[in-house]
Amino acid sequence: MDKIVQVAKARGFVYPGSEIYGGLANTWDYGNLGVELKNNVKKAWWKKFIQENKYNVGVDCAILMNPQTWVASGHLGGFSDPLMDCKECHERFRADKIIEDFAEKNDIALETSVDGWTNEAMQDFIKDHEIKCPSCGAHNFTEIRQFNLMFKTFQGVTEDAKNTVYLRPETAQGIFVNFKNVQRTSRKKIPFGIGQVGKSFRNEITPGNFTFRTREFEQMELEFFCEPGTDMEWFHYWRSFCKEWLLSLGIKEDEIRLRDHDQDELSFYSKGTTDIEFKFPFGWGELWGIADRTDYDLKCHQDVSGQDLTYFDDQKGEKYLPYVIEPSLGADRVVLAFLCAAYDEENIGTEEKPDVRTVFHFHPALAPVKIGVLPLSKKLNESAEKVFEQLSRQYNCEYDDRGTIGKRYRRQDEIGTPFCVTYDFDSEEDHAVTVRDRDTMQQERIKIEDLDAYFADKFKF
Amino acid sequence: MDKIVQVAKARGFVYPGSEIYGGLANTWDYGNLGVELKNNVKKAWWKKFIQENKYNVGVDCAILMNPQTWVASGHLGGFSDPLMDCKECHERFRADKIIEDFAEKNDIALETSVDGWTNEAMQDFIKDHEIKCPSCGAHNFTEIRQFNLMFKTFQGVTEDAKNTVYLRPETAQGIFVNFKNVQRTSRKKIPFGIGQVGKSFRNEITPGNFTFRTREFEQMELEFFCEPGTDMEWFHYWRSFCKEWLLSLGIKEDEIRLRDHDQDELSFYSKGTTDIEFKFPFGWGELWGIADRTDYDLKCHQDVSGQDLTYFDDQKGEKYLPYVIEPSLGADRVVLAFLCAAYDEENIGTEEKPDVRTVFHFHPALAPVKIGVLPLSKKLNESAEKVFEQLSRQYNCEYDDRGTIGKRYRRQDEIGTPFCVTYDFDSEEDHAVTVRDRDTMQQERIKIEDLDAYFADKFKF
Repeated sequence: MDKIVQVAKARGFVYPGSEIYGGLANTWDYGNLGVELKNNVKKAWWKKFIQENKYNVGVDCAILMNPQTWVASGHLGGFSDPLMDCKECHERFRADKIIEDFAEKNDIALETSVDGWTNEAMQDFIKDHEIKCPSCGAHNFTEIRQFNLMFKTFQGVTEDAKNTVYLRPETAQGIFVNFKNVQRTSRKKIPFGIGQVGKSFRNEITPGNFTFRTREFEQMELEFFCEPGTDMEWFHYWRSFCKEWLLSLGIKEDEIRLRDHDQDELSFYSKGTTDIEFKFPFGWGELWGIADRTDYDLKCHQDVSGQDLTYFDDQKGEKYLPYVIEPSLGADRVVLAFLCAAYDEENIGTEEKPDVRTVFHFHPALAPVKIGVLPLSKKLNESAEKVFEQLSRQYNCEYDDRGTIGKRYRRQDEIGTPFCVTYDFDSEEDHAVTVRDRDTMQQERIKIEDLDAYFADKFKF
Repeated sequence: MDKIVQVAKARGFVYPGSEIYGGLANTWDYGNLGVELKNNVKKAWWKKFIQENKYNVGVDCAILMNPQTWVASGHLGGFSDPLMDCKECHERFRADKIIEDFAEKNDIALETSVDGWTNEAMQDFIKDHEIKCPSCGAHNFTEIRQFNLMFKTFQGVTEDAKNTVYLRPETAQGIFVNFKNVQRTSRKKIPFGIGQVGKSFRNEITPGNFTFRTREFEQMELEFFCEPGTDMEWFHYWRSFCKEWLLSLGIKEDEIRLRDHDQDELSFYSKGTTDIEFKFPFGWGELWGIADRTDYDLKCHQDVSGQDLTYFDDQKGEKYLPYVIEPSLGADRVVLAFLCAAYDEENIGTEEKPDVRTVFHFHPALAPVKIGVLPLSKKLNESAEKVFEQLSRQYNCEYDDRGTIGKRYRRQDEIGTPFCVTYDFDSEEDHAVTVRDRDTMQQERIKIEDLDAYFADKFKF
């Protein structure tokens, strides 16, 4: 993992946030390559989940919402972590995590997930087992208190309860409150889905693992509305669809696993939840949660708002609250997964004379730079720049005229550029260039006038 | 303007935010068409400013930054509005606005822009001219106090100064603090630029005019770094470039004006600033600010951070702080401008027998739906859906089989779809469809196998 963090910074994928000021705990900035990679991931999601999918449309809702939203969604009441301090060393901990770690270390089988325990149950367990502070070893904790994970701010001049608003902790609620609006303006009939890509914020106590868990993060969420009774069918449909999307972008079968939640792990309203997990260098981590949320969300919003959120099914001639299947993907997490999966150090020499190249084997649709344009000599810059201009109309390209061709190929390998186009002295005569493939390292000669068609095929997704 | 707001809501461009809860003052959600329009605008900006431009690269920085950033940028010290309350009716006002309105109404020429006045100067002016409360008519105000426009929140458990962070009021500072990182990883030489698209937040006292001024908004900013002395040349380059971008997307010459700031209106560090303004239904409003910011920003960050932010120019063999040209565009504003500019009600009948169609004449690159696919009869659904699938791989399409063809054309006109493809009974024989142009309303017969090439040409941008 340390290597990925280091490579990400060195190549321009991800820098520590506010670095010249010593950073700001657990914030990260996407650099000149990272922004392209992340944008490509978002585009690939939008293409398959919204543009090409006949059921779905998109929205883009505000981050600041009416606080009643969080009353209805339960985030104001229940979206919190159980915290306690060590009275000796004053470190702060999540009580549930301490219990889980203790149970795992001592092979204690917990009957139910600690998630659902009361503060009292946790306190009793910690006392009964004399669990010690992970930091100083003392057994002397404060009481557990619940800490809400929503970031709070004030809209308007005075900092009082009336002006308190929250940064959304998920994009999903913007979709639920607009269910009727979108259904009306899109003229969609059930089943249909509404997708959204955008930032969310959670005041996590223990963020970490690079961009895996951050306080500010981006989500790609779909809320798919269907008729009650058809929900399990759609749950399985989206479960497969999400997995296929990952595989189609180069993730391998053995790098992911689908983990179905046990009955006791399920939220009380959920009929089924599956996590798609990716094998990160630090272990398995959740990328995607696919959940059958029943009509829980629409019902809560209907109750709190007093608005009728039912759907009239004109084929059946009846009204109902649709059930919802929610595939919810973390954009930063899946970008990190693609970075980890693509990274490789390959010996392209022999065993006796090793020659190691580092390379990102990004899927062409995700690669930040699609084509490197390399003039064999600076004397050819004028003509080579024309090729660069031609290709730049379609693709994010990089022009590089510094160093030997071999070094330039390696440099493009290092940032995962799938193709290099070399303009040489023959090009002036035959109006063709050499195209070199990142993965096979094979080269072929292609007419400049055929390049558009050639790459259109290579970059099809 | 009311009509635009109403049409925007009815068609799925923009809904009031959190509407089922009575809204949240001045927040707006982009609907199923609005999100596509806004994404297309962002794509068009990225394509011309980053992808095709050989000087520029992008970044995507965190919204939450180390607070020292706002010390250096001056936002913590000086980014505030002068507020005062009427003691009689308790309404709250911006003192500078009240003075400006009063001066304009009474034809008083102010020697300098009110922006630069002290609180005392404003108080004296209000007193001397006995300016009255715009709400109740009394002349009895509180003292003026400065109200910082940054949204404040707390990262971590305790709500104290140590944990205070701010939502960025502009994306530009994320670029400045990463200047060295991006220069290093992109291997760019001066002149080069760094662009960013992202959300910013300002706790405006008087937001308004629909999505023109909102507390949460999206920016598309470019910081272009150049050698001191070449800055005015680049200032004019980007000033023209920005204007051309608007014109290339269908904005007309007489809908915009370039307003150069007077000497007394300029920030003290700026050598020149031009606003590109658009003629909104409510009057001229700023879309784009293009400013020569000299080396002010890098110098401030260098001073506060203690980091060396100079650039080593290897051709000249000397170090310097680059000058910066900043074209800063409001994404929501320019989306609103495109909405206003495209909207039309046309009489396509005669004077005696008027037949008014409402239409959005969006540029093809911006239109939310690119192609409407319409089967002449539901019996043709199976084949027509295949055409829909084929076109959906490239374009956001809409499938509509409800109502007469005439009505469906009108519906597509209403949402600004540039082309409709009608699949009729002949299509089964001649493997061709009728393509109808939104603006000319002309129709032509195109082979299905030629559609990709046909539309590739139509949607070129």
